[in-house]
Amino acid sequence: MNREFELIDRLCKKLPAPSKKVFLGIGDDSAVLESISGKVLLTVDALVEGIHFDFSFCEPKEVGKKALAVNISDIVAMGGKPLAALISIGVSERISEDVLEEIYEGVAEAARFHSIDVVGGNVTLSPDRLMLNVTLLGESPKTPLTRRGAREDDIVFISGPVGEAAAGLYLLKKEGRKVLSRFPRLTSHYLTPQARVDLVELLTEENRVHSLIDISDGLSSELWHLAKASHVGFLIEEEKIPLSEELKQASEETKQSLRDWQLSGGEDYELVGTCSPSNWLVLKGEAQRRGLSLFQIGTVVSFSRGVRLKDSEGVEMPISPSGWNHLSSTERD
Amino acid sequence: MNREFELIDRLCKKLPAPSKKVFLGIGDDSAVLESISGKVLLTVDALVEGIHFDFSFCEPKEVGKKALAVNISDIVAMGGKPLAALISIGVSERISEDVLEEIYEGVAEAARFHSIDVVGGNVTLSPDRLMLNVTLLGESPKTPLTRRGAREDDIVFISGPVGEAAAGLYLLKKEGRKVLSRFPRLTSHYLTPQARVDLVELLTEENRVHSLIDISDGLSSELWHLAKASHVGFLIEEEKIPLSEELKQASEETKQSLRDWQLSGGEDYELVGTCSPSNWLVLKGEAQRRGLSLFQIGTVVSFSRGVRLKDSEGVEMPISPSGWNHLSSTERD
Repeated sequence: MNREFELIDRLCKKLPAPSKKVFLGIGDDSAVLESISGKVLLTVDALVEGIHFDFSFCEPKEVGKKALAVNISDIVAMGGKPLAALISIGVSERISEDVLEEIYEGVAEAARFHSIDVVGGNVTLSPDRLMLNVTLLGESPKTPLTRRGAREDDIVFISGPVGEAAAGLYLLKKEGRKVLSRFPRLTSHYLTPQARVDLVELLTEENRVHSLIDISDGLSSELWHLAKASHVGFLIEEEKIPLSEELKQASEETKQSLRDWQLSGGEDYELVGTCSPSNWLVLKGEAQRRGLSLFQIGTVVSFSRGVRLKDSEGVEMPISPSGWNHLSSTERD
Repeated sequence: MNREFELIDRLCKKLPAPSKKVFLGIGDDSAVLESISGKVLLTVDALVEGIHFDFSFCEPKEVGKKALAVNISDIVAMGGKPLAALISIGVSERISEDVLEEIYEGVAEAARFHSIDVVGGNVTLSPDRLMLNVTLLGESPKTPLTRRGAREDDIVFISGPVGEAAAGLYLLKKEGRKVLSRFPRLTSHYLTPQARVDLVELLTEENRVHSLIDISDGLSSELWHLAKASHVGFLIEEEKIPLSEELKQASEETKQSLRDWQLSGGEDYELVGTCSPSNWLVLKGEAQRRGLSLFQIGTVVSFSRGVRLKDSEGVEMPISPSGWNHLSSTERD
């Protein structure tokens, strides 16, 4: 009894003070938020030790930050604004309270940065693995951006390079944290991904965007989600997928397939969306004006064509939804 | 990849169709609910295999129902109405899809009964134990009933017998499901507890109730929560705690302490609250008129007196917050 409540007290001390949106925060049967004017967004995601993170190359604070980031990304992918989080944690004696405190420091840092109130949670025994389950409540002031709105002839755009987190994970597993200095970009994209909150305002303006999804499992599987929900197909031009020098270098050094990382590597938390060709010109211009970048990587085609990739020689091939399977811990190896 | 999405599809088929409150349910990055007029309630609770349930004496369907019930109870304890749930499940190959489907049948049955929309969730790998993490969003149409409002000289009331779930668990561990026929009340209180939604209307009327909490950990620890939050003390009269014939009989048969079950047994999900003596008369009358029962078990005293129990001979003794520790799986044995 006492250990549970003492631990909760200790962890809660790390969290930022509640904002005016909170009527009643941690410490009652439920949290109470002041009423929300727009539509309400709700999402949940879990990080499991040994599956989604590994303390041999992840710092506890990074795990805390990432747990919040992956959920923020789901709210962002609807064009929404995150408001409040619940943290449900499964712990055992094996994990020291100092480590838990560091995880909460990471949660708190992300919460503070994004003005998210951590309003409650749960602590339970999980003897074998640390489990970090984050629920995020958000608000959608405008029409939510769904997976359903892609239309034939739309432009397909992406918000940044993909495959970087997967490459970062590969390198961390192989070489440990000493690889951080050689591949700072790839490793940080895996360890502390950033949800693209900076794009929400641009993407929700004037109903320019028809569909949107975040890349949590991998570009190919996200495209398949969009295809299925919108009943369209995609033609992606491989050469147009943005690529960093680091990713190119990592692929050359390790002899790992660049294409596999780009198509099937998950956890980049970049956004993929579609809009009409005329809106694309406006969107791209608006992005530039604000110092942001969006990249056209293909076009929406008829459903019957499925999801296809055109390589640098103009050869087209079908691509399967080969993103990361959350039910297998080894597929990423 | 495919197994994950096929499994999600299969489980979602069990769930009730979304209501008009849902703008967009399962299948996008976040769920989208229509705006909520009152204050928003948010709570999360986890059930872990081997800690909170054991398939050797719990049916999967019961586990699903209970996962929802324990969260509904947290919304009820604020005087709120549950609206929408997220189910985050950690599974492994060890648990068959049929078992998962039965769990979802239990979730669906509870959701349908309480008009709760299951709007999303998450499926992840949890190699060692099944984990069932439920987030519940509710609405508080009136002033939320918190733990903070108890005042000196208030009447302390309870909504029903306590210690029954703990006794049920003891019997199930000892004798297995064959004990169900001899102790139907105690075992069902453990296996499929019912949140006291039937009392919400009564308890939220006319601001009669000063404080309220649900009994998830045990009467003594819930009283300590109220004491701490309201800065008051409690004097509880042991003889006034309602007691079923089954619980008396179980205690006699097993030589287990009745008092320990009543004070420290968790998971009854009855409600404990306080109100002024004059409101108590109205409340009790109103309850009777509606065929409901509330029982006075003590009075609120000065903080300096702590939480005390008066036994049948008039002897007073301090009671400690000895409810169930969620960080220990053995304390209940």
